[in-house]
Amino acid sequence: MIRGLSKSGLGSITDEQLIAKAAEYGFGVVDIDAKALVEKHGEQGAAKLLSDHHVTLGSIGLNVEWRGTDEQFREGLKQLPLHAAAAAQLGCTACCTYILPSTDYKSALFTALAVARLRLIADILDAYGIRFALEFVGPHHLRTAWANPFIWTVEETLALISAINRPNVGLLVDAYHCHTTGFTPEHLRGLRPEQVVHVHINDARDLPVAELLDNDRLYPGEGIIDLKGFLAALADIGYKGPVVQEILTRTAPEETPDELLSRSKAGFDKVFA
Amino acid sequence: MIRGLSKSGLGSITDEQLIAKAAEYGFGVVDIDAKALVEKHGEQGAAKLLSDHHVTLGSIGLNVEWRGTDEQFREGLKQLPLHAAAAAQLGCTACCTYILPSTDYKSALFTALAVARLRLIADILDAYGIRFALEFVGPHHLRTAWANPFIWTVEETLALISAINRPNVGLLVDAYHCHTTGFTPEHLRGLRPEQVVHVHINDARDLPVAELLDNDRLYPGEGIIDLKGFLAALADIGYKGPVVQEILTRTAPEETPDELLSRSKAGFDKVFA
Amino acid sequence: MIRGLSKSGLGSITDEQLIAKAAEYGFGVVDIDAKALVEKHGEQGAAKLLSDHHVTLGSIGLNVEWRGTDEQFREGLKQLPLHAAAAAQLGCTACCTYILPSTDYKSALFTALAVARLRLIADILDAYGIRFALEFVGPHHLRTAWANPFIWTVEETLALISAINRPNVGLLVDAYHCHTTGFTPEHLRGLRPEQVVHVHINDARDLPVAELLDNDRLYPGEGIIDLKGFLAALADIGYKGPVVQEILTRTAPEETPDELLSRSKAGFDKVFA
Amino acid sequence: MIRGLSKSGLGSITDEQLIAKAAEYGFGVVDIDAKALVEKHGEQGAAKLLSDHHVTLGSIGLNVEWRGTDEQFREGLKQLPLHAAAAAQLGCTACCTYILPSTDYKSALFTALAVARLRLIADILDAYGIRFALEFVGPHHLRTAWANPFIWTVEETLALISAINRPNVGLLVDAYHCHTTGFTPEHLRGLRPEQVVHVHINDARDLPVAELLDNDRLYPGEGIIDLKGFLAALADIGYKGPVVQEILTRTAPEETPDELLSRSKAGFDKVFA
Repeated sequence: MIRGLSKSGLGSITDEQLIAKAAEYGFGVVDIDAKALVEKHGEQGAAKLLSDHHVTLGSIGLNVEWRGTDEQFREGLKQLPLHAAAAAQLGCTACCTYILPSTDYKSALFTALAVARLRLIADILDAYGIRFALEFVGPHHLRTAWANPFIWTVEETLALISAINRPNVGLLVDAYHCHTTGFTPEHLRGLRPEQVVHVHINDARDLPVAELLDNDRLYPGEGIIDLKGFLAALADIGYKGPVVQEILTRTAPEETPDELLSRSKAGFDKVFA
Repeated sequence: MIRGLSKSGLGSITDEQLIAKAAEYGFGVVDIDAKALVEKHGEQGAAKLLSDHHVTLGSIGLNVEWRGTDEQFREGLKQLPLHAAAAAQLGCTACCTYILPSTDYKSALFTALAVARLRLIADILDAYGIRFALEFVGPHHLRTAWANPFIWTVEETLALISAINRPNVGLLVDAYHCHTTGFTPEHLRGLRPEQVVHVHINDARDLPVAELLDNDRLYPGEGIIDLKGFLAALADIGYKGPVVQEILTRTAPEETPDELLSRSKAGFDKVFA
Repeated sequence: MIRGLSKSGLGSITDEQLIAKAAEYGFGVVDIDAKALVEKHGEQGAAKLLSDHHVTLGSIGLNVEWRGTDEQFREGLKQLPLHAAAAAQLGCTACCTYILPSTDYKSALFTALAVARLRLIADILDAYGIRFALEFVGPHHLRTAWANPFIWTVEETLALISAINRPNVGLLVDAYHCHTTGFTPEHLRGLRPEQVVHVHINDARDLPVAELLDNDRLYPGEGIIDLKGFLAALADIGYKGPVVQEILTRTAPEETPDELLSRSKAGFDKVFA
Repeated sequence: MIRGLSKSGLGSITDEQLIAKAAEYGFGVVDIDAKALVEKHGEQGAAKLLSDHHVTLGSIGLNVEWRGTDEQFREGLKQLPLHAAAAAQLGCTACCTYILPSTDYKSALFTALAVARLRLIADILDAYGIRFALEFVGPHHLRTAWANPFIWTVEETLALISAINRPNVGLLVDAYHCHTTGFTPEHLRGLRPEQVVHVHINDARDLPVAELLDNDRLYPGEGIIDLKGFLAALADIGYKGPVVQEILTRTAPEETPDELLSRSKAGFDKVFA
């Protein structure tokens, strides 16, 4: 497994700083916007920036809004091949999206729309050699944040993936969402490695699971999630990809990036030990 | 369009009687179990029975329970190719299933399962040249008959069909379900002919739509549905297939088959006029 | 059916002239580049230009090179949603590509690539409500123009469409290619209307079929193809879409556009009579 | 990886003997007909027979003839769910078929048919939790045994799998076919583990590759294939499934099953060392 960083939890930091700091603090992977990087530095410049720091691109975020209207979906599609092409140019093979656990659409109708839209996204990504990671989202308060329940468990997400029925679609496994849906390391061992496309790591406060907020996460090793067990299970099933820090917080952190990165490094050292 | 009969509404009647009576009362199509007919009469015997009466097979019912457990689904699949092969041997090109508007599964999970299962059924049918008709079910009481809402409008059913994404899947348009979901002849004109795989005809009591029961239907022409408008809309879009009577009633009818068939014929004569 | 014009066979003519002349000579449809038109006139301007002349957009050509390398395919994909979106904005619901009957790839490998690539194109088009028309290409000399045979008959093209397995994919039926593959009006009657997404009309010299060149076509009514039978068969199966003139010639025509349009109109009047 | 046996190469031997002998000679897997075993012993009896010998079922062969006519294909489909269900009952998760490298169909048409048919087979198997292994076939003489070339390389087979586009389809990697197509251990290392659904092991005479016959194979370790390298590469990519002996010979072997099994065991011991 490869330690990775996203910008979430590192305050105000540019792509170039993230790449440099990742290298400095022992991370091998960053999750950033490939298209923006290529547009700024050119394809060769962007590739060189990464390789000079011995850092690779772990995943890109999905640019397409698939949860809204047909118009929004179509609008996002226009740019998707450009994002996928930029990612492929930089050797990135994963694209991530998250699944909100409730929706203002009727649940069944929304599921039908989601299957059709996510399938097309998967197919376009596949043309560029990119896999598609679906992130189930666990915090309980989001299950009623919109009018009707959608899906949030791994079992449901795998059923959605079966309905999508494409070889390049799998899970984004986030430690916080595992914790808030009761998906234990033991459950993790029931997955096949190719079902795990990407991994997020973070930690949770010592509160009842039902009270944990989505945007109130802790740095790895600073909370009560069994992250050693989480990582051991991923290793056991043969997962060898990125494990990327993602810390959503209610307010921007006040420390400097270096202070935050030191915390991140310490946390990774602790849970990867 | 071709006038057709099913057993629903004709009391106790055998396949052989239905075929003979259909011919006698001016119907060109029957909906019966192709596999049972072939098993009883042999392929050639069954084909001859139909052709001797100048009657063709409009559709078969789906033998697979796709609304329950994986085990039930797999059990049904075992016989599906046999049903499809028998239908194909008799020149039948449609298979029908209905969609109950609520479910004890979580709505989103059930939709994902439904997409995957109905898609496989469609693919198996397609190997035998058979199209798959999905019947939306309108009566309001069924929307809360199980724990969670599923789908019942044409718009939702078309979204499900898009999620299934197979060329041989379309609608079963039933006059009673159109009536109870507010799907008017004007709406019907918005469909393309290939979206309509099969048609059921029947009539409704003069009650508020929300009070109409699924198993309390009337014979065509005996109720208040605008069946002339219904048929005119189907003709306008270019539908040329079977229009099959299906009368679900709370108790078995007390008349003789001939009395019932006379009513059916009179009803068809009236609304097809 | 709606009479239509493409630029092929009309010499040097702009989109704006084509639209104006189509109206003037009694054509209801033009096949032009929707994206270019929208980029030049804006969405509303382009739509107004068409509606002012009571002309609609019959189809757009496919911008993606799917017959070459992965790189070429991926490059073309980048622009495809933009083309599809522009077409949808102008109410166009068809996109066309042609299938060369031989290839420098090994035939089986090329077919596997073609299925995967054409399927993705179809799916992207479908997100914008656009159907995908595959044009089989009949002239015999092209069957050996590249190293290995690919497909050229309707039967083979339908098998390819079955392998693609998407509801929005069908045939582009071109009179010249029907003539050069022996696909008669009688054969045409065996198709369902939704299998015909678009139609090209043109005519052939009185030569043995095997000698006819792809780029040596005549105007409708000036050759020996039974175009009345062709159109009658299309009408019989219920085809109601555009019938667009496409005349490929070895050298650019020397007449003025008006002279050519007069010939076209005369030809259409003759064969549509 | 788990050592496995098929009947190919062991002379006349019953399923029950194969199971018992597999256990006796240190093999953990057998490839036999699950449906036949269940029909003979009942589901529980068959499962007990296997578990009593600490042997599992590695794969079943495909019962469907997908290389011939539509009628043959449809006939085979009728039994496929029964085979898949029996395999699932015994815990078997793989089904195998081989791809002959030439065909009497036109290559492109045959590829289109193969994509559609293999996809449906894959989908039916998937409903029972079974993956589908496609075996590319290398011996050169078979490339011209029928009228037109089909596919035989891994690259081509992966292109076919991409065209099929289902998550449960992958390769059957057979040492003999790797040898005869120049697919080296180094190439093997380029595959992902989930792309390898099943493995066959056997050996080749010391002849020019182009002269090797399909039905003239040797026991593992008795020929010139670098089987240690083959197995090392499979281990390196993370393949953990069965490695099943398959020895096709021109005449039935003359030794007793025990003599043949001793040779097999010795061969496996040598190449697995």
